[in-house]
Amino acid sequence: MIKIVLLGAGNIAKHLYEAFAASPQVEILQVYNRNLKNIDFTKAETPITDKLSDLAMADVYLLCTSDNSLSDLSAQLPFEGRLVAHVSGGMDMDVLSDKNRRSVFYPLQTFNKNTAADFTEIPICVEAEKKADANFLMDLANLISENTHFIDSSQRAQIHIAAVYVNNFVNYLYQEASEIMKEKDMDLSLLYPLMQKTLQSAMENEPQDIQTGPAKRGDTKTIQKHLNLLDKDSHKNTYKQLTNAILKHYGSQEL
Amino acid sequence: MIKIVLLGAGNIAKHLYEAFAASPQVEILQVYNRNLKNIDFTKAETPITDKLSDLAMADVYLLCTSDNSLSDLSAQLPFEGRLVAHVSGGMDMDVLSDKNRRSVFYPLQTFNKNTAADFTEIPICVEAEKKADANFLMDLANLISENTHFIDSSQRAQIHIAAVYVNNFVNYLYQEASEIMKEKDMDLSLLYPLMQKTLQSAMENEPQDIQTGPAKRGDTKTIQKHLNLLDKDSHKNTYKQLTNAILKHYGSQEL
Repeated sequence: MIKIVLLGAGNIAKHLYEAFAASPQVEILQVYNRNLKNIDFTKAETPITDKLSDLAMADVYLLCTSDNSLSDLSAQLPFEGRLVAHVSGGMDMDVLSDKNRRSVFYPLQTFNKNTAADFTEIPICVEAEKKADANFLMDLANLISENTHFIDSSQRAQIHIAAVYVNNFVNYLYQEASEIMKEKDMDLSLLYPLMQKTLQSAMENEPQDIQTGPAKRGDTKTIQKHLNLLDKDSHKNTYKQLTNAILKHYGSQEL
Repeated sequence: MIKIVLLGAGNIAKHLYEAFAASPQVEILQVYNRNLKNIDFTKAETPITDKLSDLAMADVYLLCTSDNSLSDLSAQLPFEGRLVAHVSGGMDMDVLSDKNRRSVFYPLQTFNKNTAADFTEIPICVEAEKKADANFLMDLANLISENTHFIDSSQRAQIHIAAVYVNNFVNYLYQEASEIMKEKDMDLSLLYPLMQKTLQSAMENEPQDIQTGPAKRGDTKTIQKHLNLLDKDSHKNTYKQLTNAILKHYGSQEL
């Protein structure tokens, strides 16, 4: 039985709690949060505390708090030499205080408060200062996911950038596309099948092998027509900048 | 029984052929192409021709040829007053010769040569000069799809722009993300669950309600860290431009 303590009460804490609670090989000893009222997801099945001095003896302490809190919180832990992991994609391992054995247990997914997460397919990226700790965390990860990886801090930083691309940037493009559709009294839902096919094709092929469209073709006539039709300067800007990136990538002259 | 003639032998012609061939209420009288050898998808079950003068009498002629060919091909048709449709998202209806009754039958999807398309969920956008023709094409569309719409040329032009966003631009972001992952010996597949969740969330919510990330938060420290980590100028550029678009959209100062 692996004994863990969760620290934090946000989305990731909640989803990790639910995933570990469902594993018969994991015992969640405690959930800590500064504010007890926010720990509603334990449904009284696990002891909760708002005092670091009350923390139980566990095999690993998972810090699920905000990126900015990790340094201070890890320094305030009232013990030394134990295994402490943060769960953040954006922070290096060494943001943690070195008085404990530092590590990272990063589930590579974006979590909604109200949608249950199926951890079996979520990649879990594991890193630790000591090889034995890395192996231990890998065993723990394998209990809840079938998609686990040893990933070091420099790789994780790179993942975090790529995640900004495929999550934040892609969602922003959906957002502008939705605005563009609304201008002519249409809804983004008309494009859902195309959005699904685009993702499916990108996963079944290398994205660079399936790029299409006016920018890829260097079809400046269509590009100019689109720029003329776009109403908002912000849309013209996004269209022009991404078109230029694609034109350049495929060796055409930029606009 | 609706009698149709398909003109063209590209991806869309092939996929429309297969969809109509599967409908008991449609008879494909002929497939025309300049080059007979390219019409391999009929498997000898439908007459083929390379002579416009041989075209049979049909209820509708579906021009599935390239955008640039539509004007000339429609002018060369050896008859008048019949219903002629193009299937292009990027062209206005009036690109067709007015000697026949002009219309559009646009399946809003991107087609792969070798992957069968399930038309039932593909939006089909119908337009015609005459209301009766529009209704006829809608009936035809309803035979192969459960997602049919009357869409005029100005709306279709707008759809085409939004399609560039959600297909070409999104795929290009996947492409850069893949390059960024490869720089640290990782694969884009690590991000597939995040890519899927991103799309799923955008379809279950309004994209503007679920935007997250450093640009949305105005977190310039993380943004600067990412820009410093990016190796290639082209990646720095894309990251910076989309970040600026999001910063501006949410009222933060641009970089």
